[in-house]
Order: sequence, then structure tokens, then C-alpha cells
Amino acid sequence: MHQSIATVSVSGGLADKLSAIAAAKFDGIEIFDQDLISSPLSPAQVADRCAELGLSIDLFQPVRDVEGVAPQAFAAVEHRLRVKLTVMRDLGVTTLLACSNTLPGAIDDPDLSAEQLHRLGELAADQGCRIAFEALAWGRHVSRIGQAWDIVQRADHPAVTVAVDTFHMLARGDGAEALEHIPGDQIGFLQVADAPVLGMDVLQWSRHHRVFPGQGGFDLAPLVAKVFEVGYRGPLSLEVFSDVIREADASITALDAKRSLLHLEEELRRHWAAAGVARPRIGLFDPPPVPSDPEVGFIEIATEPAQLDVLLTAAGFRVAGRHRSKPVTWWANGGANLLTNESTPDTDRWVADQPRPTVTGVGLQVDDVSGFTGRREALLWPALPLRRGEGEAPLAGVDSPAGIHYFVSGQPGTREDWRLDFVPERIPRPAGEGAWSALDHLGYPVAFDVSEAEISFYRTLFGLLPGDVSEFIDPRGRLRSRVMHSDASSARVVLNVTEGHFAAPRRGLNQLAFGCSDVLAASTAMRAAGVPLLAVPANYYVDLDARFDLPEEQLAQWREAGVMYDRDESGGELLHVYTDRIAGAFYVELVQRSGGYDGYGAAGTPVRLAAQRDIEL
Amino acid sequence: MHQSIATVSVSGGLADKLSAIAAAKFDGIEIFDQDLISSPLSPAQVADRCAELGLSIDLFQPVRDVEGVAPQAFAAVEHRLRVKLTVMRDLGVTTLLACSNTLPGAIDDPDLSAEQLHRLGELAADQGCRIAFEALAWGRHVSRIGQAWDIVQRADHPAVTVAVDTFHMLARGDGAEALEHIPGDQIGFLQVADAPVLGMDVLQWSRHHRVFPGQGGFDLAPLVAKVFEVGYRGPLSLEVFSDVIREADASITALDAKRSLLHLEEELRRHWAAAGVARPRIGLFDPPPVPSDPEVGFIEIATEPAQLDVLLTAAGFRVAGRHRSKPVTWWANGGANLLTNESTPDTDRWVADQPRPTVTGVGLQVDDVSGFTGRREALLWPALPLRRGEGEAPLAGVDSPAGIHYFVSGQPGTREDWRLDFVPERIPRPAGEGAWSALDHLGYPVAFDVSEAEISFYRTLFGLLPGDVSEFIDPRGRLRSRVMHSDASSARVVLNVTEGHFAAPRRGLNQLAFGCSDVLAASTAMRAAGVPLLAVPANYYVDLDARFDLPEEQLAQWREAGVMYDRDESGGELLHVYTDRIAGAFYVELVQRSGGYDGYGAAGTPVRLAAQRDIEL
Repeated sequence: MHQSIATVSVSGGLADKLSAIAAAKFDGIEIFDQDLISSPLSPAQVADRCAELGLSIDLFQPVRDVEGVAPQAFAAVEHRLRVKLTVMRDLGVTTLLACSNTLPGAIDDPDLSAEQLHRLGELAADQGCRIAFEALAWGRHVSRIGQAWDIVQRADHPAVTVAVDTFHMLARGDGAEALEHIPGDQIGFLQVADAPVLGMDVLQWSRHHRVFPGQGGFDLAPLVAKVFEVGYRGPLSLEVFSDVIREADASITALDAKRSLLHLEEELRRHWAAAGVARPRIGLFDPPPVPSDPEVGFIEIATEPAQLDVLLTAAGFRVAGRHRSKPVTWWANGGANLLTNESTPDTDRWVADQPRPTVTGVGLQVDDVSGFTGRREALLWPALPLRRGEGEAPLAGVDSPAGIHYFVSGQPGTREDWRLDFVPERIPRPAGEGAWSALDHLGYPVAFDVSEAEISFYRTLFGLLPGDVSEFIDPRGRLRSRVMHSDASSARVVLNVTEGHFAAPRRGLNQLAFGCSDVLAASTAMRAAGVPLLAVPANYYVDLDARFDLPEEQLAQWREAGVMYDRDESGGELLHVYTDRIAGAFYVELVQRSGGYDGYGAAGTPVRLAAQRDIEL
Repeated sequence: MHQSIATVSVSGGLADKLSAIAAAKFDGIEIFDQDLISSPLSPAQVADRCAELGLSIDLFQPVRDVEGVAPQAFAAVEHRLRVKLTVMRDLGVTTLLACSNTLPGAIDDPDLSAEQLHRLGELAADQGCRIAFEALAWGRHVSRIGQAWDIVQRADHPAVTVAVDTFHMLARGDGAEALEHIPGDQIGFLQVADAPVLGMDVLQWSRHHRVFPGQGGFDLAPLVAKVFEVGYRGPLSLEVFSDVIREADASITALDAKRSLLHLEEELRRHWAAAGVARPRIGLFDPPPVPSDPEVGFIEIATEPAQLDVLLTAAGFRVAGRHRSKPVTWWANGGANLLTNESTPDTDRWVADQPRPTVTGVGLQVDDVSGFTGRREALLWPALPLRRGEGEAPLAGVDSPAGIHYFVSGQPGTREDWRLDFVPERIPRPAGEGAWSALDHLGYPVAFDVSEAEISFYRTLFGLLPGDVSEFIDPRGRLRSRVMHSDASSARVVLNVTEGHFAAPRRGLNQLAFGCSDVLAASTAMRAAGVPLLAVPANYYVDLDARFDLPEEQLAQWREAGVMYDRDESGGELLHVYTDRIAGAFYVELVQRSGGYDGYGAAGTPVRLAAQRDIEL
């Protein structure tokens, strides 16, 4: 499929935008007029540059407020269009996006709008161009695709077509059914954008919160599928703008955008397969599938020699093995595996430069390692270079945009099992009372400007979906938490997007939550063994009593052990306990879920944040 | 008046909040329950600390979802209230804020709500407490003050009163008239907050965008006046939360909050005077008035010796005088005065540490310098220490929160005229063709977390009002521009609030816009004399033609001279030209307004920002 993106969708000056878009392997662009106006490049120079970069110019956008205009003011509109058609000629672009009128003085008369669009169609046709008329969701009188299509039909000129923009349609509640009777050759252009579902002014929503397909809450595939089903064969083009994009580096955004279109093509393929309708004859991206049920096998921590040995032993861990070729120790406690890595990598600058300990990576176990690698490559995610010693398992690796290392291994017993890299030392402590079980979730701080890319990483590569945004008051600023999860995987990742007086987030994971069958016993044992646990204020337990009416001896036990509690509406329960931040780098949470409790103890989060106030998030 | 503030309105831990609030001279606080829950201080310790600090505890807030509850679930509510009443007893607070139920399962039955509040009133009364029932603007069924008052009347218990919160009322369109029939002794508490007028989900609006009185768009005085007119005599208390407050330092926020209440009392005084109604017998803040028509006399620039002499001469400036005691030179061009200051201050660290040139301050001329000083002191704004030499004018000084120095002098010819500090050297170049006139506006970047305080500075001290927010796309992030202006003053200040990939804003003014009677002549002359002017892209002039249908020779002249243009709806015109950033520090704009044009050429701002992209904002 011909993949395009509007220049407004990445940051920087026009020349930088073009380079970033070409580097991300797009086929074409929409030129945003203001980007051209602000550029020192002439239209002809822009055309030359695009030709050099292999980018077609698919759309010039937008002209605003060109219909529903008072007749005496229409000559100025014609002049404006003539000038812009000259610019388009120099650019070599033939489709022009015209937005529905937003001015307070716009006239509510479909016949007048149609007559004026007809005239503009004549002017465009004289230059070999055509107009795609778009109903802005906040248009004064024309704000729905049905109205725009009605006016295009009344305009009755071959150079006047309708534009489809998924944001404008879905923001106004128009889905695929609204396109049912529009012939595909009358659709002049298709712009796609996703957005989180927010109850806010639609203009603000559009300006600040659009995201790339797959990052928001819109169900895009059925709508986009319909556009192709009715016969549209033009570009699949992204028009997204947001606060995040304004701040993010153009090359990161362009790659993120490209991946979102690949992901959307995959969703289209799935949609057509599930709907059982004949797929239109269009080429679609077809990568290896997401891994089914990836599980967290281990967590890797870069340490100084023996730095955590006392602490890990106090927390119930035992050495389970030693790496065959590197100074890496495998520690186990029940189902929890930690690798402490004392080597200083020479190519991995961030790990080499970071103070220790730092939690640098996650080991995943999947069924098909080479399938995973194929998917990673197809989706343009960069490989993590791994050095493989004699007789060691052939792991795959990838870095998240925030720099988290993922090591992907096969299942236990296969030749790609990460355990093969270790000489076993001792049978791990079995699961049981107070022992830890597999990872419940992991978390880390993500800077605002890479947060969408980080979501995209988990979504496109592993099929995890972003949950709702939870907002918390933190003594130093705002914390917005988002859980990436999937029914098909036990791996859950908490992205903590921070803004405010936070230092630039220290790289690496800082929140490791393991399951535990008896948090109270584990907490008591850890405290006795000298593991520093988070000091939970006594007032918290008074509030627990107020909320849940609990027996005093129960509360006293928890208070004594620093155990926190939550209960959901259907009676599911959570007991959990936090360590202090360990050597300034990360903290561990033990989580005991029962009765189907599926949350994270959000009511206690402000308490934890305040207790952690002088320590990092 | 007894002035209070909710602990949720400042950032930090509870102990820090109390200290900051006391330091800002508040009389009392509302304890936000979550702040207590998260604190290691017990309720009794909090009470002791407040007593030490001279703060009364006026309210405990909130309990949520206590009415409209299914009867079988009400026992849990009673238990919750009992526990919280125990906490209140230990705190020594007797008023409890109860918010209207927001849960999806809330029952829409005023009689049930009244019955439940009656019961809670009995429990409260047993402990010598009372309940103030608040209609949250997003309450499930009770969202208007009239509904809350109706339920309080039905509850018919002396310990059940209604709470007034200006945000909740004004967000739902309820003004003073809604309080007409509520007896003042049935109003249990008054919370005030302002907000910008935004079309968005009211919960998000409340959580993220509340501001202190005078910083938003609500007309608070008539509503607050009415509360006192009906007989309320309790605290005037602030409950404000926002993204800015989360990030700002508690001591800055608390002072900002305190000033906003002083300002509100001044507004109340004005309201009652204008309305001609008898003012309730309450003490009200009564500072000296805002200066009438403050004018900008000069701009001060810290420079290296002779650093700008060539440039200023090329721009048409001549030396008009030399300071009597300091290495300060007065330059003039028509009505524009610049002071270049080569001294290194020993007490003024930021100026001493800053690279030069830096535009450090603004000289204002007012009618009553000592009145200004009285107002500054009454409003708790810190004095700027000034060293005064023999025979020099007694200026007053004040620093804005962002660090801009304001020097306040008397009018020309008075003994407080700043010109008296200078030995005149030469008659300034007269106003005339190409000469500059007085300052049109000045601007500077303001970090997000001090932006509200900066608005408050201009509003409380000088009576300038904030205009609408203009948003611009900048290649490096977001720029929100806000003009502080007043009909009574020619001084206009543009605050550019930045978020994104901007370096921490360099301190000082960076935008100096002077009037000019002939921008084209001035621009041509400056270019000929070697003053570096901003390179405006040719595409900009093509767009000007599209928008305004201008003669080609006119456009060619402007393009040649780098002059930008705008026209408003009524035909008012703006011609303006920018210098490049001068020595990395600031740029100058010359502004020629005609036909009542009152804007700032916003349509050209993205072009300017892009052209300035490698230079600071």
C-alpha cells in the first residue's frame, strides 16, 4: 500500500521533516501549507528534494473557509485558491484538501457551499488539480462526513471529491456505515489518525491528543477497511498532531508513524479475515505474528561485583547457576529469576555509563525465537547486539525506545533456552511459603516525549494493549501510569509517564513486582533478615479501617509488617509490600492476588509515592 | 477576613505544606484527607504543628459518596464516617466536607440522600461536628448548588449545611443568584477557585486547570460577595489544584495563593462600592491602588563595556546621558530609551552570573512612587534592593517571579524621575521618519511552573489582565503566548510559556517591540547600516498575496526589506520587522500599527519561530 504522512505530523523545519520521513521508508507526503510558508525552500526546491528522497507529494493541505462564504467575499477566496494552485503547480501536486468553514460568519446553505465548491473545482481542473472536501469535526455548519458528501454531490464537478479523515469521523461518532454509499473514486484522500477517548472540546482534542493508529482508543480497522471496500485506492496517509509530537525528535516520530501504518495494515488483514468478506486486491504488510504468550523468564541487573549478594540472600534468593562465558550470576527464589551482571559492556554505552545497580533488561521466553526476529525486522525495531559464547543459546534481542533491553529466548528445554548459558549450581528454592513466584508486572519511568513510541513498541512487537491512564498526585509533579497488557500474555508492563520536578528519569526498570503466595510471611521474614522495607504511615491503616471495616488484629499485623491492602468491588483482594529503593536504583513489590483481583492497589499509590518522596520514582 | 487554604493546593509532603502555608501568613487550613493518610505525622502531631504555626484547622475534606447510597451499603458509610470523626477529633477540627456521590451506582432520590445526610449529621453532632455538603460539578445526580441546598433542607438537621465552591458553581453556570435564598448560617464552608474558561470535561477541567482567584476567567467577586451578603462569616478558603501547582515549589504557590486572596478582597471592596449595596461588616484588605497608566520609561541591558555601541548606533540610537555614579549609558532613539549597564552587581546574583548582553529590567514611570511601594509591600512582593547615589532619584524596585527587574520612577520633571540620575550628553534624536517611539510591548519566556505566579504579579501589582492564550507550533515544542494588558496602561507584556525541547529559558527579556511611524524606512535604513534583520522566507510573501491580494510592487518592497504584514477584519494594519537575535540574547521588533490594529501579527508567528529556529525564543 502507498504509505504517506503529513509534514505537520513530525517536528522540525521542512527540510528535516522530509529527511526523517524518507528515512522511515514512507512512500509519500502531504505538504502542510504552513510548513512550506515557514521554509526557506521554494516550492520547486521542495519538489526536487522530494524526488531525490523518493517521496511523492500526494496532497497539499489545507485551504480553509472556502465555502459557505458570503458571495461578495468569494472573489478573495478565488484569488487565494489561484495563488495556492500556482504553488501546487511548482510542487507538482494535484490534490488539494479544503476544510469545511469554521468561521462564525459561515453561511449555513449546502447549495451555496456546493456552488462555491463547483467554482473552485473549475479553477482546480484548469490546473489539472482536484479538491478533496473535508468535514472538520468542529466545522461551523459542516461537521459530519454525510454533510460533506451531500455538498460534494450537489457541487457535481469531477474535480470536487470528499476527503475521509478517521479522526473527524470517529470524533463525531461516524463509523464505517457512513461511507456505505460513497463510491471510492469520489473519495479524494484518506487521512488516518487515532486518539484516546477523551471527553473534551473536539478542537483541543484534535490539536493536542491525536496519536498514531494503535496508540489510541479508536477502532480504526473497520473504518479504514470500508474506505478500501468501496473502491478507494489512493494513499493511506497519517495526519497526526499532538503535544508529544511537537516535542519529540522527528526521526523517532517518523519511524513510530511508519510502524503504526504497518500495524494498521496487519489489523486490516485481520479485520478482513475475521469479517469473512473478500479482501480488496491491495498489497498488505504481512509479518510473522506476535509471539503467543511471551513469559518473563528473568530480570537482568547490572551490578558491581557481589554488590547485591547479601541483600538477595536476605530476600530468600539462592545462586542457581553461573554463566558459561560472562561474569553473570543466576539467582532464584521460587519462580523468580534474577541475573546479576558484573561485566562492563563495551558497545552498550548506557549500561556502561550507568551507576550500579541498574535493572537493565528483561528476558522473555517465546515459542518461536526466529519468528520474533522476523517480526522485529519487519517492524523496523532495532536489534540489540548480543555476544554469544561457545555452546550458548541463540537469543534474540531488541531495545525499547526508552532503552529497556529485551532478551528473547525459547521455552525451557529447547536449544534457545537461556538457562543453557548457565552452569547449574544448586536447585533453586522451591515455590512455597513466602517464596516468590514469577513476575507480576514491571515498571519504569518514561519521558513524555517517548511515551507514545514506548506504547507502540509493546503493541506492535508483542501485541500488548495500553490500558486506561491512571493519574496520581506525586509530591514532585504529575505521574500518569499506563499498563500494557494482553489476555494472551502474563507479561504486564507499567509505563510511568512523568512531568514536573522529576529529574530526567534514570534509565532502567525501577519497579519489579513478583507474585507471592504469602506476602505477610515474606514481609515478616524479609524484615527479620534485614531487607529494608517501605515505611507505610500509620494513618494509612486508619483509612483502611474506614474504607473496609477490618478487624483490629488484622490491621495491626499488616501495620507491623508494612503490608498494604486493597479490595475490589467483587471482593477480590490484594496484599502487597514494597522494599525501599535498593541502592538508589529500584524497588521490589511482592503481590498476593486473590479472588480475581486484577489491579495494582491504586488507592495506595499516593501513599507509596509520598513515602518514597525522597527517592526516585 | 479569615484566610484559609486547602493543603491539596500546594505541593510536597504535609509537613512542608504546613510550613509554606504559615510562611505565607494564612490564618487557617483545610486538611485534605489524602495528605494526612500519606503523612508520617499522626493527627495529634498535625494539630500540634498547626498550633505552633498559628494555623487553625478549619475543615477536614473530603468524604465521598456518602449519600444516594443503597440502604444495605449505608452501614459501611456510617463506619467510614465514625472513623473519620475520630481522626477529626484528634485534629481538633469540627467541619467536614462531604461531596455529592459520583459513583455510577448512586441513587437519584433526594429524600434518600436527605435521610442519609440526616443520619450522618446525627453522628457528626455527637462528636460536636457538622457536615458541609458540596455539589460536585460532576456529581452523578447532584451537581448544582440548588440541588445540594434542597437536600440539606430536606435533611433538616442543624449539623447538615451546604458548602459553596465557586468552581463547581461557575463551571455549571450557577452565579450569585443561586445563593439568593440560602441563609448564611446554613452555609458551612466557602471554597474559592478560579479557572480559565475552557470547553472540556468538567472533571479534567477541575483537576488540571483550577487557578487562584484573578488568574482565570471567572468573575468571582459578585459570587463571593453574595456569600457574605447572605450572612456567611466563616473562612475565605482556597481550594485549587492544577498541573502547575503539582510542579511548583510550595512556598512560591502559597505566597501566590495568599496574594490572590488579598486581590480578591480588593475586588470585593470594589464590587460593593460599584454595586452601591451596603458592604457587610467584614474587614477587607485595603492597599494603595494600582498605579494609573504606568508607562515604560526605559529598558535596561547588562552589557560588557561598549558591547552594543556599534549596533545601537547603526540602529539610530545616540547617547543621551551618562549615569552619575554607575557605568550606565542612556541611549535614545526618538521615544525609545535603552540603558546599557556595564557594572557587575555584587548582590544581584542572576545578573552577575548571566552572559552579556542580557535584558535585565524595565523602568516604569508612575504618578505615585511611594503609593506603589506601599502596594508592593501590602501584597507581599519582594523589594528589589537599589543602591542610590548622591543626588539620584529615589526609585522603587520589584522583581517578578521569573526574575524580571522593575524599576519604578516618577513622571518626567518630578524628583523621582529616573532621568535625574543622568548627566545629559546630547539631545536625543527627535521622533520622526524611521525613528523609534515608545515600547509597544515586551516579552520573555516563562517556565510552566511559574507562569501563574507571573500572571499574578502583573495583575495584582499593576492591574494588568491576562488575555486569551494563543498557541503556536514551534519547531522545538509548544509555545503558549499570553498578553497581559489593561485599558488604563500602555504597558503590554507577552508571557511565552514554553514546554518541550526548549533549554531552560535563559533569564531576562528577549523580545522588545518598539513603535515606529515608518517600519519600511527604518528597516531599509537598519539593513543599510548593517543591523542584522530576520530572514523572512519568500514563501511568506506568496501566502500574504493569497490572503490579502496585494500589489506585486508592494510585496516586493516588503520582501526586500524583510517587513511582515497583517490586517484585521476591520481593515486595521500592522507592518513589523524583526532583528536577528542580538548577541544571542534578545531581538527587537519594530511595530507600525494603523487603523486600530491591536494584535501582534499572530499569523506570522510560526514563520518567525521557524526563521528563529536555531536561536532562542
